[in-house]
Amino acid sequence: MKMSNLFFQSLREVPNEADSISHQLLLRAGYIRQVAAGIFATLPLGLRVTQQLETIIRSEMDVLGAQELRLPVVQPAELWQASGRWDSVGPNLARFQDRAGRDFCLGMTHEEVVTALVAGIVQSYRQLPLLVYQLQTKFRDEPRPRSGLIRTREFTMKDAYSFHTDEASFETTYQTLYDAYVRIFERCGLNVIAVESDTGMMGGKAAHEFMFLTPIGEDTLLLCGSCGYKANQQVATFEKPRAASKALETLEKVATPGVTTIEALATFLNVSKAKTAKAVFYMASPKAGEESFVFAVVRGDMELNESKLSAQLKATTLRPATAEEIHAIGAEPGYGSPIDIKRENVLVIVDDAVAASPNLVAGANCVGYHLLNTNYERDYKTDVIADIAAASDGDACPNCGAAMRAERGVEVGNIFKLGTFYGEALNARFRDAAGELKPLTMGSYGIGVGRLLACIVEQYHDEAGICWPQQVAPYDLSLVALLDKRSPEVFEVAHKLYQQLSEAGFKVLFDDREESPGVKFNDADLMGLPVRVTVGKRGLGRGMVEIKKRDEQERQEVKLEDLLEAL
Amino acid sequence: MKMSNLFFQSLREVPNEADSISHQLLLRAGYIRQVAAGIFATLPLGLRVTQQLETIIRSEMDVLGAQELRLPVVQPAELWQASGRWDSVGPNLARFQDRAGRDFCLGMTHEEVVTALVAGIVQSYRQLPLLVYQLQTKFRDEPRPRSGLIRTREFTMKDAYSFHTDEASFETTYQTLYDAYVRIFERCGLNVIAVESDTGMMGGKAAHEFMFLTPIGEDTLLLCGSCGYKANQQVATFEKPRAASKALETLEKVATPGVTTIEALATFLNVSKAKTAKAVFYMASPKAGEESFVFAVVRGDMELNESKLSAQLKATTLRPATAEEIHAIGAEPGYGSPIDIKRENVLVIVDDAVAASPNLVAGANCVGYHLLNTNYERDYKTDVIADIAAASDGDACPNCGAAMRAERGVEVGNIFKLGTFYGEALNARFRDAAGELKPLTMGSYGIGVGRLLACIVEQYHDEAGICWPQQVAPYDLSLVALLDKRSPEVFEVAHKLYQQLSEAGFKVLFDDREESPGVKFNDADLMGLPVRVTVGKRGLGRGMVEIKKRDEQERQEVKLEDLLEAL
Repeated sequence: MKMSNLFFQSLREVPNEADSISHQLLLRAGYIRQVAAGIFATLPLGLRVTQQLETIIRSEMDVLGAQELRLPVVQPAELWQASGRWDSVGPNLARFQDRAGRDFCLGMTHEEVVTALVAGIVQSYRQLPLLVYQLQTKFRDEPRPRSGLIRTREFTMKDAYSFHTDEASFETTYQTLYDAYVRIFERCGLNVIAVESDTGMMGGKAAHEFMFLTPIGEDTLLLCGSCGYKANQQVATFEKPRAASKALETLEKVATPGVTTIEALATFLNVSKAKTAKAVFYMASPKAGEESFVFAVVRGDMELNESKLSAQLKATTLRPATAEEIHAIGAEPGYGSPIDIKRENVLVIVDDAVAASPNLVAGANCVGYHLLNTNYERDYKTDVIADIAAASDGDACPNCGAAMRAERGVEVGNIFKLGTFYGEALNARFRDAAGELKPLTMGSYGIGVGRLLACIVEQYHDEAGICWPQQVAPYDLSLVALLDKRSPEVFEVAHKLYQQLSEAGFKVLFDDREESPGVKFNDADLMGLPVRVTVGKRGLGRGMVEIKKRDEQERQEVKLEDLLEAL
Repeated sequence: MKMSNLFFQSLREVPNEADSISHQLLLRAGYIRQVAAGIFATLPLGLRVTQQLETIIRSEMDVLGAQELRLPVVQPAELWQASGRWDSVGPNLARFQDRAGRDFCLGMTHEEVVTALVAGIVQSYRQLPLLVYQLQTKFRDEPRPRSGLIRTREFTMKDAYSFHTDEASFETTYQTLYDAYVRIFERCGLNVIAVESDTGMMGGKAAHEFMFLTPIGEDTLLLCGSCGYKANQQVATFEKPRAASKALETLEKVATPGVTTIEALATFLNVSKAKTAKAVFYMASPKAGEESFVFAVVRGDMELNESKLSAQLKATTLRPATAEEIHAIGAEPGYGSPIDIKRENVLVIVDDAVAASPNLVAGANCVGYHLLNTNYERDYKTDVIADIAAASDGDACPNCGAAMRAERGVEVGNIFKLGTFYGEALNARFRDAAGELKPLTMGSYGIGVGRLLACIVEQYHDEAGICWPQQVAPYDLSLVALLDKRSPEVFEVAHKLYQQLSEAGFKVLFDDREESPGVKFNDADLMGLPVRVTVGKRGLGRGMVEIKKRDEQERQEVKLEDLLEAL
């Protein structure tokens, strides 16, 4: 490709809206342009990288015997109503009515559609297991699109779905996909770790996320350097510091004027935060239109984990309760405890560390007062005791007890164990060997292609621009001709090289523009092809051209006739 | 691919909803499944054909130096408002509001988005001409999806866009695209003709459509076998039979009780239909919210062409006027003429043949009466005289006068001359060599991939199923093993052949299922791979296997060891 023809324009300025390195570089180097918030056009350079990634993904899917298909972007509401997600997913699901007034949505994922499709084709256990995938446009109406291609609203996703007779068959495929994902990210050159993760809105049983570690990540991961435990904070467990077992002491109300935080309370009473209990108030909905009050209690030295809480409650939405709602159950913001509150339509859930810690300080449900020596069971009952506390940096690994570290990551892939959730919901059943009808067991497996591309840029760049790994670069090399009107031979030699290199199988981007050497070198660095070959008047005088690898400082002169071999 | 693994199921029954051969066969042979009206899932077999077509299309685009990119499906309303199409397109454009209440639509075509993108990158005539394309999902909320993939609501389209400094540059590219389209359809094996066509909602200046001739087509085409003139009826012109020039005779009102059609009138008065004038009444909108009455007159021997009328009026919508609206202007349904009607907010448009024909019989705007000897100019004035009559089968070619024939066709591709419409509307300008700012001149070029696939099936099938042309078939051959529990060697030999043929580069679909020979042969015929190789116990006994071409009756036995060569 000649750069004089390339549909591209580099930007010298860092665009205002670009809030991550990959966003800045992909815009500046002419790979993408924004069309609306979270909606991008992929320019020819960007599409070439995208297609390289798609080729890698396809080849690893095909090796598994996965069959590619194409499911629609526009999906009828009935399917999402059948799974319950029409109500549970909320505004992330973009909806519209067609000209006849029927409800449709834009697919943010395709479990419903593919399950309904499979239900119409698979009747017998003999047709299982089945693994299908697609590369298709998705739309998620994210509240806060950010970081360019890292969190968009419209994106291309590789989504695969597997169907099975039972869990054993599923587990084999799940592991196969896990391994394929590891290979895909390896082939793309991206440093990724797999962590245990939340099933979120997927309605499943367990999941893994493939995380690229980066400070701009929106997820927090807990990593154990000792035994290798890795989990998203949403589901990470930890060995909680145990409270010494002690005789229960007498409940006592004390004045704590103006003391509304755990920090202030610990200082005021001169106790450790681990000796306090913290009440947190929510309104939770198991489904749209139904809300109930949730009174959650964690120890003062821990934070509540909303994902764990949601999972325990099977809640589809969770919002902080208002002061009015808190007063209505007889509690007091800043001074809450589960003792003597109204229990009608109130669910009390207590972290297991609270239940196991004697004599905690808690609120007295009354402004300016706390209670000493509150004890679960003696002083109050609870509906649920569960792990609802967030693991954080330094907490002990649940497996080996070593201190874990917390890091930030971007999810570039995920794999979900969905069990029979969709099989049941969409009545997708098969006959087993005994002739009995059973619901399909299912897994789903996603990779965001644009996000993968952006993460590669986050990993491979320097101050001057992108440094693509060879296998995903849009072209193999930049051929820069330092044109000089007094030396037409520079163009002639460069053009001949362009033809020779192209014929030899190199994908060459030939900078034939009438621009200064500075502009050409800057653009080549910004764009990030693995190798730059420079043809200039001075070198040609000696029969030489220059080779420079993008990720090395060193330049190398080679004889014109040795160039092919040197490359 | 082993058929025991293929995600596929053939149907013996013709599905009720399938209203064309391609729809029936693609459903029955397991290429597609319907998800909702006009919305399909493409199964692995269908996707393989789709990808073959996409490869052919890409290669012909790339040869032209066209650069592939990817534009978003979801598009902001502002761009469509800028072009005016947000209002003019109507309910075919699917719209929704995002979570913040901003208006978006699903791209049914991408002129606006690509023009805005190009405007941000192209500043100088040096960057022109530019040709870009994409293969992307489109959504059009068609009122009547039909014929399977022939008229869907969601579909994959190859859309290309070219940008130019001027008409001369544009014309060159337009011809290049025209030729590329001819090659694409040739390579797909589809018999297609190019016809002049309407610009419809595209806002352009001229257009060609590539038409596959078939009785199920929704378009009518006028074709001249003599000089080669070819046009969609929407724009086809014809040499109108001239009326003999005659002295104007006296206007005379005659009673014609109960005579409300041209046929009845001609019979009642014993004149030819060519001696009568027919009034047709419409309400037309140049844009949403504004309507005016249109009084159109054509000769009684011709039909009015609504596309030509719309084009003359620059109307975005056109609907028949109600009896009430007709009475309001002083006319009478069944007895209308433009003589003595109210002219306020009424546009009178008269076909040129009417204006040139003396002494026509027309209505008297009064129930039961007609006027003899009405004459344009003497008896009434008009706002517009233009060609608004429909060419039909047998009409004379506008170029050579030979009788044209009318045929039905399906549009599989189109190319549009858009002029500076979008350049002006979206303020997409470049600086010419003199430094002056000028709007971009533009063309757009589309091919519906799914519709192309369906038309190939319409052309290539027989009673037993599809007969794919080699170059687009999902696999090269069906390898049918006639399994027999008493002869395990059938499977062994077939499996070995499967491996050998695959290694030799053939794309083989290996029917290894435990099904009867009848089922296997039926499925192979239905599915339509170009060659079937059968391995059975009887033949193997003599060291032979059978080869049969899908489109021939003859079967050929070859020695096992000669099979590769024979293929």
